[in-house]
Amino acid sequence: MKASAISEYVRGDTIAAESTPPGRGGISVIRLSGEQALSIAKKVFSNKLPSGGQFAFGKIHRLENPNHVIDHGVVLVYEKPHSYTGEDTVEFSLHGSPVVVAEVLNELFQAGARQAGPGEFTLRAYLNSKIDLTQAEAVADLIEARSGTAAEAAVLQLGGRLKSAADALSDRLMNVLMLSEIELDFSEDETVLIGSEQKIIIIDEILESLAELSDGYAKSKNIREGIDVTIIGAPNVGKSSLLNALLGKSRAIVHDTPGTTRDIVEGACVIGGVQFRFNDTAGLRAGAGQIEDEGIVRAKASASEADLVLLVRSIDMPDEIEISVERKSIYIDVLNKIDLSEHSEVKCDIGVSAKTGYNIDKLKELLVAKIGNDNITSASVINRERHLVAVREAQEAVACARQLLIDEDFSELIAEELRIALEAMDRITGKRQSEGLLDKIFAGFCIGK
Amino acid sequence: MKASAISEYVRGDTIAAESTPPGRGGISVIRLSGEQALSIAKKVFSNKLPSGGQFAFGKIHRLENPNHVIDHGVVLVYEKPHSYTGEDTVEFSLHGSPVVVAEVLNELFQAGARQAGPGEFTLRAYLNSKIDLTQAEAVADLIEARSGTAAEAAVLQLGGRLKSAADALSDRLMNVLMLSEIELDFSEDETVLIGSEQKIIIIDEILESLAELSDGYAKSKNIREGIDVTIIGAPNVGKSSLLNALLGKSRAIVHDTPGTTRDIVEGACVIGGVQFRFNDTAGLRAGAGQIEDEGIVRAKASASEADLVLLVRSIDMPDEIEISVERKSIYIDVLNKIDLSEHSEVKCDIGVSAKTGYNIDKLKELLVAKIGNDNITSASVINRERHLVAVREAQEAVACARQLLIDEDFSELIAEELRIALEAMDRITGKRQSEGLLDKIFAGFCIGK
Repeated sequence: MKASAISEYVRGDTIAAESTPPGRGGISVIRLSGEQALSIAKKVFSNKLPSGGQFAFGKIHRLENPNHVIDHGVVLVYEKPHSYTGEDTVEFSLHGSPVVVAEVLNELFQAGARQAGPGEFTLRAYLNSKIDLTQAEAVADLIEARSGTAAEAAVLQLGGRLKSAADALSDRLMNVLMLSEIELDFSEDETVLIGSEQKIIIIDEILESLAELSDGYAKSKNIREGIDVTIIGAPNVGKSSLLNALLGKSRAIVHDTPGTTRDIVEGACVIGGVQFRFNDTAGLRAGAGQIEDEGIVRAKASASEADLVLLVRSIDMPDEIEISVERKSIYIDVLNKIDLSEHSEVKCDIGVSAKTGYNIDKLKELLVAKIGNDNITSASVINRERHLVAVREAQEAVACARQLLIDEDFSELIAEELRIALEAMDRITGKRQSEGLLDKIFAGFCIGK
Repeated sequence: MKASAISEYVRGDTIAAESTPPGRGGISVIRLSGEQALSIAKKVFSNKLPSGGQFAFGKIHRLENPNHVIDHGVVLVYEKPHSYTGEDTVEFSLHGSPVVVAEVLNELFQAGARQAGPGEFTLRAYLNSKIDLTQAEAVADLIEARSGTAAEAAVLQLGGRLKSAADALSDRLMNVLMLSEIELDFSEDETVLIGSEQKIIIIDEILESLAELSDGYAKSKNIREGIDVTIIGAPNVGKSSLLNALLGKSRAIVHDTPGTTRDIVEGACVIGGVQFRFNDTAGLRAGAGQIEDEGIVRAKASASEADLVLLVRSIDMPDEIEISVERKSIYIDVLNKIDLSEHSEVKCDIGVSAKTGYNIDKLKELLVAKIGNDNITSASVINRERHLVAVREAQEAVACARQLLIDEDFSELIAEELRIALEAMDRITGKRQSEGLLDKIFAGFCIGK
C-alpha cells in the first residue's frame, strides 16, 4: 500500500457514515467500523450490545445524557473479521429521518469515530483482503447499474468472476515464467525443462484467454454503455408520441401544433437488457429557408452522433421530406399513424401506431436486432477501460514472448515479457498497484459504502 | 377495526417494500412481513435462513433459477411477535441500487408477497397492538422532523409519553364514571359511594391535566410549526447578505446593484430548537411612484403575514425610508453594515455586520428571545389538531359534569358527560376509532414504513 494512494486512511481509525441513500423513509442505516466500533456503540446504546451475527432492539441516546433518547432502533454487530470491512462493525438501523441520522452521527463522532470518506468502508474491505480491486469496482458498478444486465454483470464480478479469470491467467503466466527462470539459472548447463513447442502451446492458450477477455469487452459495449437513439422526421409525424409509446409514459410534450418539441428531449428505457437513450428532436421542415432553425441543426447533429436513428414518417404524408442527414448510423425507417389507413403501399422497415400502441413491441425487437445484440446475453468479464488496458498490455507482451520463443531468442527477454504480462494481470486484481490507482477507484464511490 | 378504514389490509397477507429512502447508496433495505415472510425469504436466499434475532450473509437469487444471483446481502430474521409489525418479518440489506431493489422485490412478489401500501407496516404494528395510534403518529413525525426539538418530541411520543398521559386520564375518568354508574344502579337506595365534594376534587384534577395538555399545545406552537420571518428594508441595505449570514450559506444572490432580489427567497434554519423560515424580499424603495413594483407589494404582504419581521437599515443611510407596513408582527430593528462606521448614534435593536458576521449570533439569540421561546425547552405532549380536538371535547364534557355535580343534577347526565370525555381520550390512543381515522393517519406515511 502506497501512503499517497489513500491519504485519509489510518489503520485502527474508527469511521462512521450514513450508508443508505439520503432522505426520508422508513429506515436509515448508519455504519460504524474500526477498532473502537464496539466500544463507541456501547456508549450510545441503551441495551447490552448483541454478540456478533445478532441484532438487538434498543434506544440510541446521547453520550452525556442517557435519558435523552435520539431514536429507538435496531443494532447489528459484526465481529471482525466477519464483516464487510473485515473490522469490528456496528450497523444502526434507525428511523429514516435526516435529523435523527445527523444527531446519531454527531454522538458517534463525539465518542471518537470520524466521518468516513467516499468508499472508505470498501477500501478497508480491500486493504483487509476481504475483496480484491475488481470486487471493489463491482460494488460501485452494482450501485450505479442502470439495467438488470448491468447489475447482473456487477454481481458476477462481485462474486469473483473477473478475479478468478485474472488470477487463473496470472497463475499460468507464473508457471511459464518460472520455467523460463529456472532455465535461466541453469542456462550454462543448457537445461531445458520443456521444449519451446510445448511452451508455445501454453502461451497460445494464454493468448486465447486474453483475446476472449478483450473481444468480450468490445462485444458487450452495448450492454455496458447503452445505445443512443435519435428520433427524426418531419414536423407532426408523431415523433414525440412514438417516444412516449416506447418509454411507456408521457415524457415529451405531445401537441398537434407542428414544432412543439424544440429542445432535444431525453428518455431512457431498458429493452432486451440494453439501455436505450432516446433523443426526440425538432421536426425537420422541408424548405425551411436558408436559416435553419437551431432545433433542426441540433436534430441533425444528434442523428449523426447516434448509434441508431429512427426515421419517422406519417402514413398521411409519407414522402413529404427528403432527409438530408448523413447516414453513418444505423437507420430504421418507421411509418407512424398506420391506424389512419389500414392498407398502405408505402415502403418502410416497420409500420406502427404510437397512438394505439400497434407494433411498438415489434419495433422494440427490431431495435435490439439492429444493434446485433440478439446473441449477447450477458456483459463481458472485463468492463472498465483500465481492465482493457491491462489485458492489451498482457496480450502484447505475451505475443512478444511467443515471437522470441519462435526466434529462439534470449531467455532473459522472454522472461522479461512474461513478467510484464504478469504484472499487468496483477494490476487488475490489485495484487500490484500503480500509483494513484486506489485514489482513482475509490473516489468514484459514494460516502457510506 | 372498521373494514372501511383500511381497505387494503388482509390479515395474513405478506407485504414487501423498500424501506430505505429511494436512490443510490451503500445500503438499501427491503422489508417483508406477514405469515409467509419466512417461507418466501427461503425461496430467494442461498443460505439457511437465520433464527430470530440473528442475521446472515448470503446471496439473493431468482426464484426459478438459484444460479442467477441478484445480489449478495445480509438477511435479518424477526420471529413474531418480536418484530416491528408483530408478524414474522425478514429484512434484506442489499446494495443501494434501484435496479437490485426492483429485481429483489419482483422475486418476492412472484413468491407470494404483495406491495405494501403507505404506512402498512406501521398499521400492522398498530393492529397487532405493538404500538398505539399516538406511537404510529410519532413514527411519521420522527421521519418528517425538521429540527432536533421536533425529533425529540416525536421520540418521546414514540416512547409512550402521550399514550401514558391519555391512558392515565382515561383511567381517572373511568373511575369517576364507574362510581357514578354504581350510584345509578343503586339509585333507589340513594347509595352514595363518595360525596359530590370529593368527586369535584377528582374532576378538578382531571380538568387541570387536560388544561396542561391544551395549554402546552398552544405554547409549543413555535417548536411544532416554526417561525416565519420576513426581512424587509430599503434597496441595498444588505438584506440578502443578512439572510446568507443567518443561514450560514449563500442562498440569496448578493449583488451591489439595488433591486437584485425580486422574488421572495426562502431559506430555513434551526435556532434554539425552533425552525425559522426566512423570506428575503425586494427592497422597499422610497418614493417609488404610484405604481408599486410587484416585488414590493409581495414584500409588504409577506411582512404582514410573518410572525416576525427583520426591518433592516444600513448605517450609511439609516433614515432613508419610512416603512409603510402595518406593524402587526413582532419587529426587530436591525442596523446593518456597522463595520463601515464604528461609532454610531443611530437607534436600533441590534447592530450587525452581515459581511463580517459581527453580532449575527446575538441576532439569533434575539430572534429566540422575541418569540418568547427562552423557557420552552421541549415540544408539547399533544401535537396534532386531532389530539387538541379530543382534549377540548373532554375538557368541555368534564366541565359540564362538574357543573351538573354542583347543581346536584341527575346522575345519568353526569355519567353521560364523563362517557363523552372518556371516549374523546380513547380516540387519541385509538382504543376507540372514529370513521376514517386510520385511513387519514396512515395515508400520511411513506411506503416502506
